[in-house]
Amino acid sequence: MKVQSIKAHLQEPVVTEGAKGAHIRVLIGPDDGASNFYMRHFEVEPGGCTPHHEHEHEHEVLVLKGTGLVKGAEGDRPFKQNDVIFVPGGEKHQFCNTGDESCEFICLIPAPRQSDC
Amino acid sequence: MKVQSIKAHLQEPVVTEGAKGAHIRVLIGPDDGASNFYMRHFEVEPGGCTPHHEHEHEHEVLVLKGTGLVKGAEGDRPFKQNDVIFVPGGEKHQFCNTGDESCEFICLIPAPRQSDC
Repeated sequence: MKVQSIKAHLQEPVVTEGAKGAHIRVLIGPDDGASNFYMRHFEVEPGGCTPHHEHEHEHEVLVLKGTGLVKGAEGDRPFKQNDVIFVPGGEKHQFCNTGDESCEFICLIPAPRQSDC
Repeated sequence: MKVQSIKAHLQEPVVTEGAKGAHIRVLIGPDDGASNFYMRHFEVEPGGCTPHHEHEHEHEVLVLKGTGLVKGAEGDRPFKQNDVIFVPGGEKHQFCNTGDESCEFICLIPAPRQSDC
């Protein structure tokens, strides 16, 4: 069992094209023995954004701090602390910090699928 | 895409044997179209506990509020707000609130596995 604060995890810049002022920590991943899904922490500076992109896998998000807009298939949706966001696989999306303080959220993704056959 | 506050989700008591003063909300589950893993929210009253049990699946946990002890294979480990906890599958565990206020955490589990074959 691992018990460790968010801040004990290495924070790195998000270098994906289109990201601005966004930083990531892998909280639970392959190194912890997680085989089904991974937990990441994002911190986005005021005015910053995650990439505007789409992919096959879904996102399960919980907002820990701050306010922003999430751009999705139905337009821009505001979000705030304690909001739960589910982005289905295949939906183009982007998280932008529209507040005056940093915005933090966790975002979980499935682990790469192993074939059973 | 769904954007909804934690409190907008139905809260129900945890009725599993051994649970005391524990309440659960399903934040992201099958009804949202989640197919790989589910996000649940737990609120445990002071002096309360989740069941002391084990199962094949892992837990990925983030503590949102309060303090407590998590009982695991290596004994009792204290936890506090912003702690990340990974409980591997097969490890017996229990979350207990040792503080004076309610303790809240999210806990993610894999979806039941569909056979590919």
